[in-house]
Amino acid sequence: MLTALDEARLAQALAEAEHAIGLSEPNPRVGCVIGRANGTVLGTGFTQAPGQAHAEVMALRDAARQGQDVQGATAWVTLEPCAHHGRTPPCCDALISAGIRRVVVAVEDPFHHVAGQGLARMRAAGITVDLAEGSLRDAALDLNVGFFSRQLRGRPWVRLKTASSLDGRTALPDGSSQWITGPAARDDGHRWRRRASMVLTGIGTVLADNPQMTVRAVPTARQPLRGVLDSHLRTPPTARCLAGGGTVLFAAEGVDTPGHALTRQGAEIVRLSVATDGLDLGALIDELSRRQVNELHVEAGARLTGAWLRSGWVDEWVAYVAPALLVAGAPIAQMPPPATLSLAPRFKLQDLTRVDGDARLRLQSSTSSPDTWWR
Amino acid sequence: MLTALDEARLAQALAEAEHAIGLSEPNPRVGCVIGRANGTVLGTGFTQAPGQAHAEVMALRDAARQGQDVQGATAWVTLEPCAHHGRTPPCCDALISAGIRRVVVAVEDPFHHVAGQGLARMRAAGITVDLAEGSLRDAALDLNVGFFSRQLRGRPWVRLKTASSLDGRTALPDGSSQWITGPAARDDGHRWRRRASMVLTGIGTVLADNPQMTVRAVPTARQPLRGVLDSHLRTPPTARCLAGGGTVLFAAEGVDTPGHALTRQGAEIVRLSVATDGLDLGALIDELSRRQVNELHVEAGARLTGAWLRSGWVDEWVAYVAPALLVAGAPIAQMPPPATLSLAPRFKLQDLTRVDGDARLRLQSSTSSPDTWWR
Repeated sequence: MLTALDEARLAQALAEAEHAIGLSEPNPRVGCVIGRANGTVLGTGFTQAPGQAHAEVMALRDAARQGQDVQGATAWVTLEPCAHHGRTPPCCDALISAGIRRVVVAVEDPFHHVAGQGLARMRAAGITVDLAEGSLRDAALDLNVGFFSRQLRGRPWVRLKTASSLDGRTALPDGSSQWITGPAARDDGHRWRRRASMVLTGIGTVLADNPQMTVRAVPTARQPLRGVLDSHLRTPPTARCLAGGGTVLFAAEGVDTPGHALTRQGAEIVRLSVATDGLDLGALIDELSRRQVNELHVEAGARLTGAWLRSGWVDEWVAYVAPALLVAGAPIAQMPPPATLSLAPRFKLQDLTRVDGDARLRLQSSTSSPDTWWR
Repeated sequence: MLTALDEARLAQALAEAEHAIGLSEPNPRVGCVIGRANGTVLGTGFTQAPGQAHAEVMALRDAARQGQDVQGATAWVTLEPCAHHGRTPPCCDALISAGIRRVVVAVEDPFHHVAGQGLARMRAAGITVDLAEGSLRDAALDLNVGFFSRQLRGRPWVRLKTASSLDGRTALPDGSSQWITGPAARDDGHRWRRRASMVLTGIGTVLADNPQMTVRAVPTARQPLRGVLDSHLRTPPTARCLAGGGTVLFAAEGVDTPGHALTRQGAEIVRLSVATDGLDLGALIDELSRRQVNELHVEAGARLTGAWLRSGWVDEWVAYVAPALLVAGAPIAQMPPPATLSLAPRFKLQDLTRVDGDARLRLQSSTSSPDTWWR
């Protein structure tokens, strides 16, 4: 049973974990708070870059640095402590040897080397282990939704981002789209990019807008990979999305790639099978799963957005809506209209937030509920 | 200076005033709480139908019915008490003769027979009078925005209501529009209708959807007038919007109306001058001002919605957005697209509310700020 203090400390650990966004990839973002039942906090920490310390070890080090004795203390952790030797020693061993007496965990780790073993090993060592339920568990799932998706469904979490007028236009007929939504919505969009392992767009957007596809409006420890669906490798060698490396161009199978000029710009070229209406998004999903992509951030034009929506792979849709009327111009998604209203693609409204003068709708596919991934 | 108790009591008086919506038209919705500085409430009331008691008198009667002595008590009122003999005796005299010692008013009455005279008369009688500022005053303005608009600008407050998909469609190409938004949004829409003096639509909607245009989803003491912009009087005699009377058909000048068959259905026919793109909305506004229409509720198809948005008369836009994608079909508004993004019609996002599974954006024209109506 969790107390009010447990809930406060788990919320604090979740806030710690937020600092690992853009840092711990592809490892999950984890936060840890070590303290006493009387309310004293002894140390806090969050997961570092891959190969470096996890949240629990960071929190223990924090306590040690402050000369705090953690014997008999409680650790609140946003994810089950790991029980395996990966690039770092098991965190549950670190907690056991530090003399921690109770561990409160927001959600179990589904990773097959860990699942339940971290909890079992700690219990065997005499530690009291409690698990959260309800909104704190949901928040912990949400924080690492891509990690859980990859572990439990074997594929990335696909997040679509759009910005449109109230009448569903993303640009005027002349292509002008700067700016429909305001600066705060753009910054907020970069916050979602930062969560992603890869930011993906289509060749149409590259040719029309020449976007950088980077995280700039918010600080980040690393840039996500950038991906372009570019069947015939029409990306110009001078495209801004190639600058600095870390860009993957997805071409159609059969396209000649060895020694291609674009690889000299640092781009990686990956060939995918072709479906009736373009590159096979299912093959792309498989490729991204192999690359440990947790969250895929799709920011594309009407054609590719339509293809994603039609594919059924979209888990989440972050839609910014400006209180403006464009009347004509590019639609959000180009696809065949539904035959009846009951067949129209429909999402669950998860969250509705004002972002300065614009509205942000956070939508989820009705078939993408992380809670259902657990047996 | 208002105390925390004053603010709580004014909020309570505002809640009382809500009960007058759909009852007091065309008089303002007013609420009154009478009580003591120690927190005791002695009586509450709200404005009744025209010709019947106002809020202050209702609150005094409520106190009397409960055997409460109001000598030396405070009255919290959402609008300056009236000082003139209209269909009822002046409310400020009722408060004075009841022995009220302090009156807290959320906002002054702009009505020329009253403005400032109610406050002056009470002060002359030795009553301490305090006026609210900030959010409580804003809420009092908002509650009677159409009344203030008519008194201070000489015209109704025009509220547009739309319901669309996230991509800005209000129906599929085959015309089907039931239902894009859910039942809660429809009920909420009826709540806005109830506030209105008139619910207005166009002949296109009458012919296509045959709407009743009444308040049904929420209880109401009276139905708003119904108006149809119908240049050539094409409304069928069997149209559902004619049932029960209270319908005004706005025809083009020159159309022959005396003895018209539709008047035998109880409809009133009013002729308006014609502008380049249909009936002159400015002439309509004048006509509605003469009829003491406080709030005009416009719920129309793309053509009339476009004409309103182009006219610049729209003060407020209540837009329901369903998290669905229709791809094709009727747009929200039909009008010439803006030449550049900076020329696109743009509103202020006043409020963003989740209505079950849908989003509600409450938008206001940047030139429609009630606060600027006061000198």
